[in-house]
Amino acid sequence: DLAEDMSFEEVAYLLWHGALPTRAELDSLTLELAGSRGLTPAARATLEALPTDTDPMDVLRSVVSVQGVEHRLEKPSIPLAIHATASFPTILAAFRRRQLGLEPVEPRADLGHAANYLYMVNGKESSPELVRALNTYLVLLADHGMNASTFAARVIASTESDLASCLVGAIGALKGPAHGGAPSQVIEQLEEIGTAENAERWLRDARKQKVRFMGFGHRVYRTYDPRARILKAMCERLNPDFYKLASKVEETA
Amino acid sequence: DLAEDMSFEEVAYLLWHGALPTRAELDSLTLELAGSRGLTPAARATLEALPTDTDPMDVLRSVVSVQGVEHRLEKPSIPLAIHATASFPTILAAFRRRQLGLEPVEPRADLGHAANYLYMVNGKESSPELVRALNTYLVLLADHGMNASTFAARVIASTESDLASCLVGAIGALKGPAHGGAPSQVIEQLEEIGTAENAERWLRDARKQKVRFMGFGHRVYRTYDPRARILKAMCERLNPDFYKLASKVEETA
Repeated sequence: DLAEDMSFEEVAYLLWHGALPTRAELDSLTLELAGSRGLTPAARATLEALPTDTDPMDVLRSVVSVQGVEHRLEKPSIPLAIHATASFPTILAAFRRRQLGLEPVEPRADLGHAANYLYMVNGKESSPELVRALNTYLVLLADHGMNASTFAARVIASTESDLASCLVGAIGALKGPAHGGAPSQVIEQLEEIGTAENAERWLRDARKQKVRFMGFGHRVYRTYDPRARILKAMCERLNPDFYKLASKVEETA
Repeated sequence: DLAEDMSFEEVAYLLWHGALPTRAELDSLTLELAGSRGLTPAARATLEALPTDTDPMDVLRSVVSVQGVEHRLEKPSIPLAIHATASFPTILAAFRRRQLGLEPVEPRADLGHAANYLYMVNGKESSPELVRALNTYLVLLADHGMNASTFAARVIASTESDLASCLVGAIGALKGPAHGGAPSQVIEQLEEIGTAENAERWLRDARKQKVRFMGFGHRVYRTYDPRARILKAMCERLNPDFYKLASKVEETA
């Protein structure tokens, strides 16, 4: 399985070049990503001006838009994609720390994409197991074929517009609850249910009140989302309580 | 012809409601637009942080994104559309004045959409003829059927995302030279040609060097863009020198 053995950097290379990188190509991409993690002054100012209760997807959409203005009408290219990709964790981590009333943590060039994100959020290095889990999650997300956010980006690219424009369109589409916005609604619902013991009662009440159960059924994966098997095993190791709750809900529903 | 007799506000009402407004409905929409022209503090801060040489479409995309964050995941609605529509001229006029080293001019509630934009750019009221010309231009732009920017907005809306996300996607698509970005390239080319007398020589050289003539051929309007007739007459009245240059280029090419 790609998901469990490869790094985010390797999969990014595969998607950009259509082939897996050699060791030298991977090192060069890793260095380039690590060197592109900084934000422009305007992007930093926008990040700091946004209200702290802003939806993180709105933060990303806005700051990516501002970060992209220096490239104006350059055609999308792999170097620009590397720059943009490198900036996403910086934006999200800095905003998360702002929400917590903490100063942003500068990115570290000696850490990979996943490890560096966790470092920027927490201000300290995470366990290899957690880094590996985030890496696997990112790799699984890369394996999603054509979907609404990719399609939005392609419609925008078709007018010969620039990369930032394509990315903000994709982020805007991804935000929708019928697309990438779904998982956060699942988590909200699980938090509402609270404990595994409470699952049956909550679900019975929800059914009576015709509340929609989030996280059941996928518009593309009609039988079982192939990514779920890997994520479940990871979740069981890293957050057993949450795993117990989520699987009880899955069984009961 | 709708274009020459109707105000921007009337056409906006028609597009939003599918029918022309009564006098009372039009007054109410005009008031609502006039009352929604302000920017949020975060949107203002973003506008002020952007480098002054930023492409105006990048400014619009970024500031509309920030202005929209307070509505998070509200479903797109007509009141939200009114708010967004009202803010576009404020954003563009304030940025234009920043480029000129001037303070922004606060919107005036007693002016219509077109007149207020010109007022905010110039700091004084424009002639009724110029206001009418801008109004006609805006009305003509509304009459464009399905196109790439509308399509991008619809793809994003299909995920149940919010209005700001749809708008930034549409602006991103509109920016491309194969869509709304074309006219500014036409103007750049006309500025390079300089005078009507120079047209023939410039075009001959351009053809030799296989430079593409901008502004000839439209992906949808294959014969003659029906909007061009009205715009030409307006241009002849308002900017005779530019008209002479542009029509000479059109004839010669």
